[in-house]
Amino acid sequence: MKLQAPKGFKDYLPEEALKRKVVTDKIKAVFSKFGFDPLETPTLEFEETLTGKYGEDEKLIYKFETPGGDKVALKYDQTVPLTRVVAQYGPRGAQLLPIPFKRYQIQSAYRGENTQKGRYREFTQCDADIVGINSALVDAEVLAVAYEIYKALELEVIIKINDRELLKGIEAKYLAAMDKLNKIGEDGVIAEMVQKGLSGSEAKDLFNKITKSEPTPQLLETISIFEKMGYPKDSVQFDSTLIRGLDYYTGIIMETVLVSNSNASSLGGGGRYDKMIGSFTGTDLPAVGYSVGLDRTIEAMEEAGIIVAPKTQTQVLVTIFSKELADKSLEVASRLRSKNINCEIYLDSEAKLDKQLKYADTKGIPYAVVIGPDDVEKNTVVLKKLVDRTQESYSLADLVQLLIGFPPTRE
Amino acid sequence: MKLQAPKGFKDYLPEEALKRKVVTDKIKAVFSKFGFDPLETPTLEFEETLTGKYGEDEKLIYKFETPGGDKVALKYDQTVPLTRVVAQYGPRGAQLLPIPFKRYQIQSAYRGENTQKGRYREFTQCDADIVGINSALVDAEVLAVAYEIYKALELEVIIKINDRELLKGIEAKYLAAMDKLNKIGEDGVIAEMVQKGLSGSEAKDLFNKITKSEPTPQLLETISIFEKMGYPKDSVQFDSTLIRGLDYYTGIIMETVLVSNSNASSLGGGGRYDKMIGSFTGTDLPAVGYSVGLDRTIEAMEEAGIIVAPKTQTQVLVTIFSKELADKSLEVASRLRSKNINCEIYLDSEAKLDKQLKYADTKGIPYAVVIGPDDVEKNTVVLKKLVDRTQESYSLADLVQLLIGFPPTRE
Repeated sequence: MKLQAPKGFKDYLPEEALKRKVVTDKIKAVFSKFGFDPLETPTLEFEETLTGKYGEDEKLIYKFETPGGDKVALKYDQTVPLTRVVAQYGPRGAQLLPIPFKRYQIQSAYRGENTQKGRYREFTQCDADIVGINSALVDAEVLAVAYEIYKALELEVIIKINDRELLKGIEAKYLAAMDKLNKIGEDGVIAEMVQKGLSGSEAKDLFNKITKSEPTPQLLETISIFEKMGYPKDSVQFDSTLIRGLDYYTGIIMETVLVSNSNASSLGGGGRYDKMIGSFTGTDLPAVGYSVGLDRTIEAMEEAGIIVAPKTQTQVLVTIFSKELADKSLEVASRLRSKNINCEIYLDSEAKLDKQLKYADTKGIPYAVVIGPDDVEKNTVVLKKLVDRTQESYSLADLVQLLIGFPPTRE
Repeated sequence: MKLQAPKGFKDYLPEEALKRKVVTDKIKAVFSKFGFDPLETPTLEFEETLTGKYGEDEKLIYKFETPGGDKVALKYDQTVPLTRVVAQYGPRGAQLLPIPFKRYQIQSAYRGENTQKGRYREFTQCDADIVGINSALVDAEVLAVAYEIYKALELEVIIKINDRELLKGIEAKYLAAMDKLNKIGEDGVIAEMVQKGLSGSEAKDLFNKITKSEPTPQLLETISIFEKMGYPKDSVQFDSTLIRGLDYYTGIIMETVLVSNSNASSLGGGGRYDKMIGSFTGTDLPAVGYSVGLDRTIEAMEEAGIIVAPKTQTQVLVTIFSKELADKSLEVASRLRSKNINCEIYLDSEAKLDKQLKYADTKGIPYAVVIGPDDVEKNTVVLKKLVDRTQESYSLADLVQLLIGFPPTRE
């Protein structure tokens, strides 16, 4: 038996899972600050809901048939499920959603891709979208959310933007060539365009046309509003060579890169897709959104030397001195917990103290409490700072006061 | 095209999703208080990992083959993936996990069940497990976690407990009959035992043997430790007729019911399964855990009249008086956000004020800010309390002070 998860599917052991919790909590706080409330959609959609949305990449969708005969698929992103939800519950459906509809969604998506560094077949997306209005104000709001997220995570980024309007009428295969500019350079792009059907001079003309495009009026207004919101203008950059793979974009497109490594793969991206909801309901409803790739973002934070999260949320290990004194330790642990102090009691009441302290070391717990026979007599407890094994005696009341608000990190 | 999710799979629109966020945040806080750190495992496991773990219910597992030829399954619970993780990364594997290993896991599980009220084919489980030690202290710790969760959610519950030791040697089919006691009564259970092969007197004897069992020494010690932790003794009740469906339990089993409706389906449950990790590694490693069913728990809170969450996390809608004054509204919104006040700016700068306020009503936003021409002149803003449309003028600085810490609820 293979004692592992399927290829491309990842376990997040506690230290990694805690990073994901800390980062998604920060992202949620930004979403809430901008008035986005959460939405959750199921892992599975009907296969036909996803069909015809993703262009060439559609082959990466996981599909299967349920025992009941439903043809289903694992969701490929959060955007198509969102549009299905808006079609179903929105103004052309059950009318349960206010328009403009703003929602965030932090859930898994699934793609049968070749696995590579930072790319998994199940991965978490943190999306915020605004449905119902196409305006520069709305586009600027989405840019602002993206900007504030990276700021909250201490990442220095540039958000590259472009407008699909400028790329209108260019065949998808030539856009796909252009999309590789960072990887294969100008000559490579032109060669690929030629290989795909253009003459050499046509390819050069197309390349020049794209690289020399000027921002659309809506893009300019978007940048202007972004500035009026108080954000630094140079954190957004017009890039006429920005393409983004997906077919469904119709207006602004965005992609975020690190200032320090702008050629690395993007940390997130998004854009406007004003036609997708109409593909369900027959009536278009504009929409724009941004998606943060959680794994890639955490990787970038670590590469930048940012401490993403403590190793554990536990502040203190309450040791058990001996089986006879276990009750006293239980009492102390209960008291600490009643004050919302994250505390673990060592669960093997027969383990030597040294083993208990080593366990705290392994887990990265910063403090240990020891209650020995002397302490019981004097009604005190000993607090050990584990990083240097210094210790001091306190009354239980003083210990509680001391630990309230202590962050669970080793100094 | 069916404009919906597959049957048994549920969308959580913002109001419902927010309840789930608020409740899981509270549950996570309790898990952390007891020193559990998070773990995440993928949606998919190899099919063979799940095989032979769930008895009869194994037929409910969703299985399929990936394009790469992997035979995979959607996870059926969090317990088997946990044991796979412990086998893979624990003392018999990569040695990356400290023992005792405590983790919480809040993720979806998938079962192809007949759908019914409060039962979905994808549902969220909130699990906490302790791996590595079999003792009354450990069992009591798990009971304490369960107790504290329902307390944090304001639910009055009884945790029924039993010990699988007491049911050892009884054939599964007779236990399955006993498991229906609440539904079909004593006569029904005995009739089913007879139908499944016992004589009438054998069935009665077995029924009496089960109902008259006394708690094992470990159960008694567990209850005693639970009391020493400061919890009310009567919140835990020994129930010798408690069975629990799954095959893999070996010691304590737990199931939580409402005090007000103890015959309704349980809010959560768990137990000790000391043999499962050994089924992977060949060496047993004891384990015990508890699982909160999120949907059922939120339902119970609502039935009990508990306000689970506000309708939105947004505290204030910043309206746009006119297109000309939009910049001023942008400025106010940015200022509020910079103080971590959750605020939404109305995104259609041409909408009438009345429409904007109605939008806030629909979303349940408690306050609106209006900045009209007079306000711009006087450098003030108007704060409207939407529940009664009363309003007052403030300086921006005073507004910020006033809103900091305001909960996003209508009074």
